[in-house]
Amino acid sequence: MKRIYAFGAGKAEGSALMKELLGGKGANLAEMNSLGLPVPAGFTITTEVCMQYLAQLPVRPGAGQADDVSLPEGLMDEVRAALAGVEEALGRRFGDADNPLLVSVRSGARVSMPGMMDTVLNLGLNDATVEGLAAAAGNERFAWDSYRRFVTMYADVVMGLHRARLEQLVNELKDSRGVSEDNELTAADWRELVGRMKRRVEESLGRPFPEDPYEQLEGAIRAVFRSWNTARARYYRRENGIADHWGTAVNVQAMVFGNMGDDCATGVAFTRDPKSGAKLFFGEFLLNAQGEDVVAGLRTPQPVNREGDGADSELPTLQETMPEAYAQLVDVYKRLEAHYRDMQDIEFTIEKGALFILQTRNGKRTGGAAVRIAVDMVLEGLIDRGEALRRIEEEHLSQLLHPSVDPSAERTVIATGLPASPGAATGQVVFSAEEAVRVAAAGSPVILVREETSPEDIEGMTVAAGILTQRGGQTSHAAVVARGMGRCCVVGCSDIVVHREATFTARPRDGEGNEWTVRAGDVITLDGSTGDVMLGEVAMTSADLDGSGLDELLGWADELARLKVRANADTPKDASTARSFGATGIGLCRTEHMFFEGDRVQAVREMILAEDQEEASRALEKLYPMQRTDFVGIFEAMESCPVTIRLLDPPLHEFLPHTDAEIESLAEQMGVRASRIRTQVENLKEFNPMMGHRGCRLGITNPGLYRMQARAILDAALDVAARGVEVKPEIMIPLVGTARELEVLRELVMDESEQVFERRGSRVEFLVGTMIELPRAAIMADRIAEHADFFSFGTNDLTQTTFGYSRDDARFLQTYTAPDVAILAKDPFVSLDQEGVGTLVRMGTERGRTTRPELKVGICGEHGGDPDSIAFCNEVGLNYVSCSPYRVPVARLAAAKVTLLDN
Amino acid sequence: MKRIYAFGAGKAEGSALMKELLGGKGANLAEMNSLGLPVPAGFTITTEVCMQYLAQLPVRPGAGQADDVSLPEGLMDEVRAALAGVEEALGRRFGDADNPLLVSVRSGARVSMPGMMDTVLNLGLNDATVEGLAAAAGNERFAWDSYRRFVTMYADVVMGLHRARLEQLVNELKDSRGVSEDNELTAADWRELVGRMKRRVEESLGRPFPEDPYEQLEGAIRAVFRSWNTARARYYRRENGIADHWGTAVNVQAMVFGNMGDDCATGVAFTRDPKSGAKLFFGEFLLNAQGEDVVAGLRTPQPVNREGDGADSELPTLQETMPEAYAQLVDVYKRLEAHYRDMQDIEFTIEKGALFILQTRNGKRTGGAAVRIAVDMVLEGLIDRGEALRRIEEEHLSQLLHPSVDPSAERTVIATGLPASPGAATGQVVFSAEEAVRVAAAGSPVILVREETSPEDIEGMTVAAGILTQRGGQTSHAAVVARGMGRCCVVGCSDIVVHREATFTARPRDGEGNEWTVRAGDVITLDGSTGDVMLGEVAMTSADLDGSGLDELLGWADELARLKVRANADTPKDASTARSFGATGIGLCRTEHMFFEGDRVQAVREMILAEDQEEASRALEKLYPMQRTDFVGIFEAMESCPVTIRLLDPPLHEFLPHTDAEIESLAEQMGVRASRIRTQVENLKEFNPMMGHRGCRLGITNPGLYRMQARAILDAALDVAARGVEVKPEIMIPLVGTARELEVLRELVMDESEQVFERRGSRVEFLVGTMIELPRAAIMADRIAEHADFFSFGTNDLTQTTFGYSRDDARFLQTYTAPDVAILAKDPFVSLDQEGVGTLVRMGTERGRTTRPELKVGICGEHGGDPDSIAFCNEVGLNYVSCSPYRVPVARLAAAKVTLLDN
Repeated sequence: MKRIYAFGAGKAEGSALMKELLGGKGANLAEMNSLGLPVPAGFTITTEVCMQYLAQLPVRPGAGQADDVSLPEGLMDEVRAALAGVEEALGRRFGDADNPLLVSVRSGARVSMPGMMDTVLNLGLNDATVEGLAAAAGNERFAWDSYRRFVTMYADVVMGLHRARLEQLVNELKDSRGVSEDNELTAADWRELVGRMKRRVEESLGRPFPEDPYEQLEGAIRAVFRSWNTARARYYRRENGIADHWGTAVNVQAMVFGNMGDDCATGVAFTRDPKSGAKLFFGEFLLNAQGEDVVAGLRTPQPVNREGDGADSELPTLQETMPEAYAQLVDVYKRLEAHYRDMQDIEFTIEKGALFILQTRNGKRTGGAAVRIAVDMVLEGLIDRGEALRRIEEEHLSQLLHPSVDPSAERTVIATGLPASPGAATGQVVFSAEEAVRVAAAGSPVILVREETSPEDIEGMTVAAGILTQRGGQTSHAAVVARGMGRCCVVGCSDIVVHREATFTARPRDGEGNEWTVRAGDVITLDGSTGDVMLGEVAMTSADLDGSGLDELLGWADELARLKVRANADTPKDASTARSFGATGIGLCRTEHMFFEGDRVQAVREMILAEDQEEASRALEKLYPMQRTDFVGIFEAMESCPVTIRLLDPPLHEFLPHTDAEIESLAEQMGVRASRIRTQVENLKEFNPMMGHRGCRLGITNPGLYRMQARAILDAALDVAARGVEVKPEIMIPLVGTARELEVLRELVMDESEQVFERRGSRVEFLVGTMIELPRAAIMADRIAEHADFFSFGTNDLTQTTFGYSRDDARFLQTYTAPDVAILAKDPFVSLDQEGVGTLVRMGTERGRTTRPELKVGICGEHGGDPDSIAFCNEVGLNYVSCSPYRVPVARLAAAKVTLLDN
Repeated sequence: MKRIYAFGAGKAEGSALMKELLGGKGANLAEMNSLGLPVPAGFTITTEVCMQYLAQLPVRPGAGQADDVSLPEGLMDEVRAALAGVEEALGRRFGDADNPLLVSVRSGARVSMPGMMDTVLNLGLNDATVEGLAAAAGNERFAWDSYRRFVTMYADVVMGLHRARLEQLVNELKDSRGVSEDNELTAADWRELVGRMKRRVEESLGRPFPEDPYEQLEGAIRAVFRSWNTARARYYRRENGIADHWGTAVNVQAMVFGNMGDDCATGVAFTRDPKSGAKLFFGEFLLNAQGEDVVAGLRTPQPVNREGDGADSELPTLQETMPEAYAQLVDVYKRLEAHYRDMQDIEFTIEKGALFILQTRNGKRTGGAAVRIAVDMVLEGLIDRGEALRRIEEEHLSQLLHPSVDPSAERTVIATGLPASPGAATGQVVFSAEEAVRVAAAGSPVILVREETSPEDIEGMTVAAGILTQRGGQTSHAAVVARGMGRCCVVGCSDIVVHREATFTARPRDGEGNEWTVRAGDVITLDGSTGDVMLGEVAMTSADLDGSGLDELLGWADELARLKVRANADTPKDASTARSFGATGIGLCRTEHMFFEGDRVQAVREMILAEDQEEASRALEKLYPMQRTDFVGIFEAMESCPVTIRLLDPPLHEFLPHTDAEIESLAEQMGVRASRIRTQVENLKEFNPMMGHRGCRLGITNPGLYRMQARAILDAALDVAARGVEVKPEIMIPLVGTARELEVLRELVMDESEQVFERRGSRVEFLVGTMIELPRAAIMADRIAEHADFFSFGTNDLTQTTFGYSRDDARFLQTYTAPDVAILAKDPFVSLDQEGVGTLVRMGTERGRTTRPELKVGICGEHGGDPDSIAFCNEVGLNYVSCSPYRVPVARLAAAKVTLLDN
């Protein structure tokens, strides 16, 4: 068993493929070496050694405790041999008092576990070698400062003496010197301190600080191995699905210094612009500095060149300051990007004019950059289309499609609610729809703040830049409407209390107990992706899709995907948006929103309050031409794409007024007594409206309503077809639980269609299908399929009924999904519960297709835009998913990615 | 193929086993003949002939139309031959002008279809034979009256001339004679009328009324066959599951007359008392009368003897008037009962002193009589125990167990609601719980009338004789509580409107538009089995179980049944009731009602409104001793039977006050601001509480509550065990949807139990299980069973979630179950939906037992008391059903009957 893999001087025993054995960092260091890049030489001790060593130890919490279990026999001999190779590569010797080789000792697991495990730097310093370092650097203070840092770190990580015990000595010395900053201490001060520190180590632990570099090294290796089993590392592994038996490798690598003088530097560079994705080499550096200094941000870094962000800098560039090192860096970045075929984030150090690469990794990037880079790399022939798609995350598209709060912007979060519809918005607070309309008409963006919204608020929501509600969940009226509009929205924000539509008070849950009062006209900013409510205006980054590469990317996605993507759209405007985002049809056109618009709700109310059949028919006849116009608009917008229209679904009481004032005004309009309306409102009230008199139950008890809708759909289809546009109407019956419901209502639609076709002297093809959104519908799907041309799983309601969760009330889900409780891994309204609800989706699909093998099956719930759920739908064999227009790109991407996984 | 089966003179070619071929009536007539009973001779033409004949006809709606398709070849020859046998038996000849034989021609299908098909009586009369009949009867008027009846009936049934066309002639003649009643017309008048009628037949139909008796007979046979296919007969068959291809037989039988003089009589007798079941021969008769006269009730019938009801009659008995015929009748009834081994309802006619038996069938009886007769017959050795059980219907037990409105009592129904809890009650109307307590304490029975009830009404409900609510369904608070108490209850009575707790107005749906106003103090009667609300006091029949035979019968049931029967009981009193009705345990002890009692709700509210953990704990500590006392009482009442206790289930807002007055009073009691309570009430409000923050979700978010309950249960169990009583507590976690919920809460209960056992130094065996009442729980049952000792299907909630029906709102179910809509065959909250919800019950049971083969599985929903549902539970392999105490006898019976079916 080979236990140590060396690298250096353009050669390496390992490679990028050996992550399991060498860890990610070790494999990567080997790979860079093999590429001939100037990487400081070193070696990697394998993860197998780690597990062999740990097997001898009892697992116990708390890192850094001394223990006397030795490393596996002979290992240190192999370490010495490997170190000899490093010495040779660097021309320095470990422990050499003249020109000593110093090393870093770092962990490196198969998967990165940032900050979880231990590192020791500058190892090899002792009272003799520190002098050699001072000489080589020409800087005594640097050498002693490095030494005291090493002692502190080593004592803490390896010997188990908390670093505070030694840092205390620094403070004491500063006090006695009457100074406050580290940089006011001299080389002599640091030398003095090192002595005191080593004495304190011996006093505290009863054993001396090791002077022997090899003893130091052995201790550090053991400590890194042990750090695999600290409590925090084990917790991190459990949370991130990392196996306990993988172990960590140890990387021992020569130290290089960017802070040995003005011919030294350290920096970070990106092979392309991580913000825009533009193909520009891009980076920053500091002269005579260490890596930490770049991160700390105390000095202003200089650009590496004049491209991109460096164009207007007043500071000299690396290209200007160190043209040779820069040229070498350019050569390196090109080779790295070509090798890794992705944009690289590179850490480099220049020691006395010589360039060293310390690390390279795939660079983090904005959504826009991710798309731009992926598309460019396909065009450059670096990667194929599948790879381009694989690299794009849902998050990237969300960022790209919505304006978002600038991550670096200052903000004051005063409350946090449920992120109901992504994007960000700033505007004046208004507390009513009327006020929203008034203020927006005057040209000011507004944020509509309501306890909860109701259909009467639609106009206000339409003009608002963002919507904030105190109550209601992810399917509350506000949330559904806002997502349909692509409008930023935060709902169920229980941190706020709205007072009499004039102010709201906010008290952030995790805050200091400050209470904020916000008045109408005050400006706030909402982040619909996090649920944050912020005071005042907060800087944003905006969405701009032109030239983003998104169209090309999603075009490739569509070619690959088996699942089609449709959109949920209720208006011609939504339909156009959906088409522009690439929807292949409408999977769910809800008709209830149409019933609220303008003066229609008046006719709807007349229908509901009708005392006899005739009165009801008259009201329906008022609605009919308006419905027909709606459908004409939608069919035109969707051209030849299929349009699934759901007949009326919500309980009728949603359309009735509820306050005394509204009731009286309606009574006056209708010329009836208010008491009659009040009685009707009272009679229609329901304890659990979600499970009440709605969906096809309305169609059964009130067939005139569904007849009117069917007639409007088919007349509209004929109107549009007459203009030469192909129409594909699909009439969908909601909330079916028995085959007989669908049978009766299908007959009704068929009967109505024959009347329309006869009257018009013309026919149009159409389908009749049903939502599967009740457990019983999934169970009875074979029988229901006898009467259905298609199924569409309404997974919102199916999730509600399968779990028995009312989504609007399920605040307990916050507890259920909390990591320490972990009843549920995810919110089932966000990502489909595959084992529970999914069993019913699978059963419904399979049973439906036993009756009708060619049955078209889709899904139209919020899950239709969730990548994990889309993967499930693909596996079950659905034909399409349907989601809100703004989620269509995400769904197209996800549908392609799941096909990539299959292949 | 034999086409005709003759009977008469103590012989018969058919038997009771030949119902398929001869129809029920034909088989029965044959059987009685074979027994040697004096049955008028006749013959039966088989159902095969019927189908052969009908096969030649196009099926068309509307009966009685003339058509010219002949009877199968040679049939009429066989009819003549059979008729010759009848002539011989009777000593009269068909068509004989001196002493004619008359016959009846009747249909008779395999299964009785009362009133659906046609009959012709007195066939054989013509202008010649009518004179012979007059001579034989010594009564010309009787003969001509019989003749005109025959003409009318024959013209209508056979020839297709509506009877009104001929009856018109009777009215014309009466007008011209200046009389108003039939009996004012003379023999001559009738003779005149017959002539006119026959002329009208000929004028209307273009063919004469047939004079030839054989032509009459052939026409009648064809008409009876055709009547199988009338629209109403086909509709009846569809509704009652009778196959179209069964066909009807035709029975041709000699007419006998009870109205030929004072040596004639007709009557009805029962072999035992149909009201009490006592073994007394019992009946009524009229001298010189026809069967119709007994039914019409114009004359007061005389008793057949002095036993039973005849003891005090002033009228002479049959025994006294016609001792020979009576003796013969006694002989007949004994043979009939011995032969049919059931109480018989016998129709007899005495013609000139000779007894004829026209019909015998199993007699209808009250619930009490059914039980009494079944038990007596077992003791008499007539039937076995299984047969006794088979004969008892659910309805019989309901009648026996609850007082009920006397079926013959006069009543004014002013409204009808949902029948929520059976029985009947009369009392003064009160509109509040306080008033109920006050009036009841004064000794008057009260009917509590509320818009809907809430926990505050409990005391009022306890003292009320009956409960009526305007709103709420079969699981509304009122319905559930009333059923638990066995209290008569009508809910969701939308025919009434309660006004300010002072009056209610009622307008019956199908009434004349009368509106009734009922004030506090007015007396009404409720029928909890029909939902009727009646004005004033209505006579009732009461329940008296002593000596009813019920205990013996149900004891036999328990020996047979595989399924055990438990009861749902929340209090020691309910538990005792359950035990007295034979429950083998408690399947569901709800703890929420305990939380409402007396001053407990105060502590519950303190817990809910607590601002921190400590405050909540203090409130729970107040509840703990009360809960412990509750459970002690229940364990004692149930002795060694298992008691399944469900931890708290309803959402907490149910315990909070809602009106301003209540809130302010609570605030004062608690010493906090009312606004704090108001905010909390507002925060806890839910859109769909049925699917809200309840069940185990409370236990997860509020573990202290479930810990307290577990501690109270186990301490109580140890208290009772210490007194030497065996206890079997089963702790049940409600509304589980994921395995993890049960895992967490089981651990919590286990942890608490260890603390209790350690503190007490004593242990008790107990189980921890869960309700399966969500579709997801059934789907995940294999995983859930890992943590469950038992499952109990909560089919109320499972039905709600599987169908997506809120039971309290599902008024549309009235439409859904209406025969013309027929979306659902039955209300799924009354009888388990076997194909939908049942699939989940089966899946849950099977999956649970794959994990734990010995898993104990029960059902505790309203369905636990429904016989069809019980049969399903037996089939699925459940261990027990649990229902309200008053349903336990019904369930025990049903559990036995389903076992009988299996064997």
